[in-house]
Order: sequence, then C-alpha cells, then structure tokens
Amino acid sequence: MIVTPQFMDFSEPLALQSGASIRGYTLAYETYGQLNADKSNAVLVCHALNASHHVAGTYAGQDRSEGWWDNMIGPGKPVDTDRFFVIGINNLGSCFGSTGPMHDNPDTGRAYGADFPVVTVEDWVNAQARLLDRLGIRTLAAVMGGSLGGMQALGWALQHPQRVRHAVVIASAPNLNAENIAFNEVARRAIVTDPDFHGGNFYAHGVVPKRGLRIARMIGHITYLSDDVMNEKFGRQLREGIDLKYSTQDVEFQIESYLRYQGDKFSDYFDANTYLLITRALDYFDPARAFGGNLTQALARATARFLLVSFSTDWRFSPRRSREIVKALLDNRRDVAYAEIDAPHGHDAFLLEDPRYLNVVRSYFEKVLSDAGPPQGAKTPSGGSAAHEVASVGVASS
Amino acid sequence: MIVTPQFMDFSEPLALQSGASIRGYTLAYETYGQLNADKSNAVLVCHALNASHHVAGTYAGQDRSEGWWDNMIGPGKPVDTDRFFVIGINNLGSCFGSTGPMHDNPDTGRAYGADFPVVTVEDWVNAQARLLDRLGIRTLAAVMGGSLGGMQALGWALQHPQRVRHAVVIASAPNLNAENIAFNEVARRAIVTDPDFHGGNFYAHGVVPKRGLRIARMIGHITYLSDDVMNEKFGRQLREGIDLKYSTQDVEFQIESYLRYQGDKFSDYFDANTYLLITRALDYFDPARAFGGNLTQALARATARFLLVSFSTDWRFSPRRSREIVKALLDNRRDVAYAEIDAPHGHDAFLLEDPRYLNVVRSYFEKVLSDAGPPQGAKTPSGGSAAHEVASVGVASS
Repeated sequence: MIVTPQFMDFSEPLALQSGASIRGYTLAYETYGQLNADKSNAVLVCHALNASHHVAGTYAGQDRSEGWWDNMIGPGKPVDTDRFFVIGINNLGSCFGSTGPMHDNPDTGRAYGADFPVVTVEDWVNAQARLLDRLGIRTLAAVMGGSLGGMQALGWALQHPQRVRHAVVIASAPNLNAENIAFNEVARRAIVTDPDFHGGNFYAHGVVPKRGLRIARMIGHITYLSDDVMNEKFGRQLREGIDLKYSTQDVEFQIESYLRYQGDKFSDYFDANTYLLITRALDYFDPARAFGGNLTQALARATARFLLVSFSTDWRFSPRRSREIVKALLDNRRDVAYAEIDAPHGHDAFLLEDPRYLNVVRSYFEKVLSDAGPPQGAKTPSGGSAAHEVASVGVASS
Repeated sequence: MIVTPQFMDFSEPLALQSGASIRGYTLAYETYGQLNADKSNAVLVCHALNASHHVAGTYAGQDRSEGWWDNMIGPGKPVDTDRFFVIGINNLGSCFGSTGPMHDNPDTGRAYGADFPVVTVEDWVNAQARLLDRLGIRTLAAVMGGSLGGMQALGWALQHPQRVRHAVVIASAPNLNAENIAFNEVARRAIVTDPDFHGGNFYAHGVVPKRGLRIARMIGHITYLSDDVMNEKFGRQLREGIDLKYSTQDVEFQIESYLRYQGDKFSDYFDANTYLLITRALDYFDPARAFGGNLTQALARATARFLLVSFSTDWRFSPRRSREIVKALLDNRRDVAYAEIDAPHGHDAFLLEDPRYLNVVRSYFEKVLSDAGPPQGAKTPSGGSAAHEVASVGVASS
C-alpha cells in the first residue's frame, strides 16, 4: 500500500486548555481506504509519544518506510482498509509535520521553541475534530490508539460522545501514576539541563540538546520493555566475547550498547521541545480530576462502545490501569470488551506482532462493521465477543 | 551512642580483580561495642551505594548524625552492640573517607579522577579482610549488608569461607539483571556526558558534574521506591494548590519537587567518579559467571549459615532474586533461613523501621550469639527459626 502524507491548514485560532491559543496551524495526516457514501466507515488512529500520522503503508520509492502500525492497519489486516477509511493524524506540537516548536511563531517570525503553547490530550482531540469537520466526517466508526493514543481515544469518547461509535483503547491508563510522572520528569530534566538546550531556543544556536535526548530515550526504552524480555534479549551478555574490560565508561554489556544506540538514533531526529510537550500532555491527562478523582463519574459522558486491551507484562501502563477504565465504564453500564493479553514484551507489545492480540482487534472491527447504527445510550454490560481467544478478566460492575 | 571514625593505612599494594593494583590506601571505619577475649563476636557491616562506615550512633556535638543503619545496630538493638563488636567499613573508591577518586594518585601527585582503578565486590572483600587481619579478627560471627552490601556479605562467604560463621544478605541479588544494568548505564551516561565531567578530571577545573549527578540520583530514587508507596506519598498531588500551571519546565506535581530536591541534595555531596565505580561494582558482581551461570556450583564453596531477607514490593532486587540464592544454598545442603517481608516500601525497606523485619534480624542474631562454634561443613537444610514472624516462602531443594 503506497501512501502519501497530506497537510491541512487551519487559519481559525484554536483555544487551548491552558487558556492560551494557537493562531494558525497545519495538521499532517494520511488516509487509507475509501470513505463510503454515508461517511460511516471512518476510523481515526491517534499516535503515542514517538509516532506520527504515518500509521500504515509505505512511501513511494522508500523501502522500509512502513507506518508504525502497519501490522494492524491495511488491506486485509485487523483494521481492514478494504472496508474502513482510516485516518492517521499528527498532533500539534509534534516534530513530524504538524505545526510544532520548530516552526515559526507568526507573532515573532522566529521558531516557537520553548514558547510553543502547552497542548493537552483534550486540545489534540479538538484539533483532530476540526480536521474531521473539514473532511465532512460527522461520526467515527471508531477511534483507536495505544498508550498516549489510547488516552486520545478515551478523550474523544468524553469530549465528542455523539461522534464516536466505538473507542479502542490499548495499553493505556486513565492517568499517569506518580512513577510514570517521575520517569517523564527525569527525562525532561535531562533535556532542559543540557547546556545545548538554551532554554528551548537551541535552533537559533545551531545546536541540539542531544545529551538530554539520549538520556530521555534510554529511560523511555527501559520502561517500554519488560524485565523478562530484557533478560531474554540481553541478559548479562557481554558485548565483546567473554573478557571483561573493567571500565566505567566503555560499553561492557549488550544492554548498554542497545540503549546507547537507541539514544543516539533518537537524538538525531526527535525534537527536544516536542519531547517536553508530549510528556507533559501525558502528565496532565486525567479525566477524573474534574470529578474529584471519581473515574466512574468522569466516564458517564462516554456513550461509545469500548474495546480495552492490556498486556500482562506492561509495567508502564499495567493491566490494573486498563481495568480501572473497564470498571468505570461498567459502573456506567456501558458496553465494554476487555482483553488482557499474556505477552512477554512489556508496553511495546501494543506495536508488535502477536496473533492473539491482532485477532482480538480483528474480531472487534468485524463487530464495528456490522454495527452501523448511531452511538448507543446506556446499555447492559456485555463481555464482548472480542475476548474469545484470550484469558478474559472478570471486572465486577459495582 | 557517641562514635568516632577511625582510619587505617595500608602500604602494601592491593591486587585488584581487573589486573591493576592500588599502591597505598586508607580505609575509614568505625566500631561499636567491645571485642571479646577470644575475638569471636565481631560483625562486619558492608555498605551499599550511597553509604559509608558510619553505620550506627552519632558524632559528638552533631545532632541528627545517626548512622545509616542506626535502627538496626546499637545497644539493645537487633544487632546488639552490648553483645557484638560491630565494624562499619567504608569501601575503596568511596567519597566518604577511604581512598577514592578525589584523593591524590601517588604515581602522579594529582587526584585519581577517572584513573582510579575499577574495584569490584571481590576487591572490597579482600580490602576488608586485611583490615580485619590488622584488628586481629580471624573469624567473623557474622557479615551482613543490604543491597550491594548483601553482595559483599555473599562475597565474604565465597572468598573467605573459613572466616565467616553467618552471612546476612538483605534485599540483594546474585547479580544484576539487564534492567538493573540498564538503569545504572543511563545514570552513568548522564554523568559522563555532562560537560562539567571533563573526562573525570573535573576537580582540576573547579566544577562538579551536578546535572549528571542529579539525573543519576533521580533515576535511583525511582527504583528504590515501590509504585505503591510513590502513589501513596505523592500520587498526582500538585505542588501548589489545585490550579495547573501548564508548563513543561516548572514543577507541577509533588513527585517532581521531591525528585528535584533529592537530586540537588545528592549532587552537593556525592562524587561523580565514585558513582561510576560503585555502579560498575554492582554490574560486575556475578559469582556464577565463572561456573557458566550455575549459581549452585558457585555457592558450593560457602560454608557459612545464611539469613536471606527480601521485601515483597522491591522491584530493584525482587524476592525472586533472593530465592535464587536460597535455592542454590539449599541445593548445596547449607543452613539457610529466609524471610520475605510483606512491606510496601520497595527496595528502601531494608533501611526502614519495620518491626517484623527487625524482629527477624534480632532473633537471627540470638542464634548467632548462641552458635559460637567454627563454621559448619555441609548441613541438612533447615528453615531456620528466624522466619517465625513472617510468611515463610517455600523453596524446594533440588
């Protein structure tokens, strides 16, 4: 599937949750498949920290340019683009095409840098809604995402309940816990205290805070992988043969080499200001906050049907966090399917090839296809047919 | 209990595991209680990453100068200094008194800096053994430590089996796993890539790589605490009232404030080269390595009786890792007591006041006192009396 990125300009200012607003902006997006006549087969895919609108397919003439969820989305795939019109969108503040800190601030004529306004999951959802308006899509057959993308799917169901028939929330959480925020904060401090950060205006100095970006990415990678998969892939293997070098600075173990490589690669292409913005969007997401922490009350607005998926070894967003969402939806008598996949790969599992996981999503989207009606009202809870291939986890309705 | 640090100089070079050697050196230590006539009541306490020879008591005229294990060691305490002669010792390479990277290299007349030789747990044990020789102590009633200190206690039982009657190994592991090494490596990269590190010779530049030390300490703190205790202590509490500031660089959540404070404090007193050395000593410790990874074979040399203690929420050195040691000892028909304490505090629990934990150690040291005989030979496995107040965990002997 050969695909092409598209760009849409918005001249109307977007009011942000912080009270600030962003004047004019551009959103990068891609679409796969055909929008049907009644525009009822659109699926919006929201991205996580290190991803973009390039969700599926490849770019013409570029080998190995597969989208980040190419195993999930495409012709004949679990989200079948022969039947659905799938939209990948790049969020505001990104460094992959949509307006972000590297672009010029129309107020100053210089790069936004650290002055790019703080954007939240709610802001992203609103920006995405405008793009759908322009595409003439009133109601989404489904909105889906993993991790931070799952938060956006949940945000859609809360902010625009009448526009979402199904929400697919994978390896996500109703908010970050203290440990999640802590890891984000260490990564941010590494970036901000890098002398090459220059208060976020490093573009003007012709440098990049690579040291900080490397550290941020190394920390991220540790939290994406499970203990088990790290031990299996790297264990205590030495990089070179069997002799120890006895050095504090040279690479000695394979895991060190892997992390340094990942950090180096990331620092070559990711924008430091974007990293700060996206980790903050994660920190701030907390729909229960306005309800004194009561997630059940917070989710009462959502009328979509839901699929939640979690992975047993994900310690960043553990199954327990997905179950909180499931419970709050069931408390509201919403229709929820939940699958907890016994996978060894930690948080990264949501991007990987796992037949049980892909089958869960495939069978759920068969249900989405057959369910062309309007968004539901309150419903009797149901286990959902999607969980048939995995150990289903009972979540009691209170 | 008022205590005084002591210093002992060694002019004989110490051959190190790396093949290097260290010419002359000084070890800082403290002692508590009285050595008995037959010198059979000595207990050596080994320290972990961020600690020293100042294990118990306070310094004259210095309020709040309690040693790091003052709740464990002292008159009438679990390790009772009215009955035992307890020795706290500071390791080579430290920044708290023993010879380390901040001291002058006699070969050059300048601070060692990054040229301080890499030291291992085994080297530390050998240096400690020399100090005991000079104190005229042939056999230890017990050697004990938590975390990296527990690795030294295990090292003693392996390197000097005839000199150890009991080894008390708390919140420790038979080696670091890939994730442990990964966190150490991120911390080291943060330090080494700080422009103020100057290849380890920052003393000559009159600077300290504080940015790197802060990041290292923040990462450390996250891994010392359990998810649960972090959520209980900090959760998603905002630092200032209830209004969000919407900023990527200001402190917004309490957990951020706590981590920044811990990082700042640490960077004021800890030496960057010492941090590199000590994390590397952790990485390298792996007694099974010379036995193709077979821990049972590796521990066959140990003849001491053992107490192992782990904490349920410790994800840095989880109970599973302690059980590996217990199993390998039982495979060798050694006498092992094991207690797994159901404590919420994560790895930090080994330093905290938990009555069940302290009682386990107290009753074990009553056994140590009553057992004044020479080190055992092979013995029938026994559950040990020490585990009576906690949920004991069955470990099958193969």
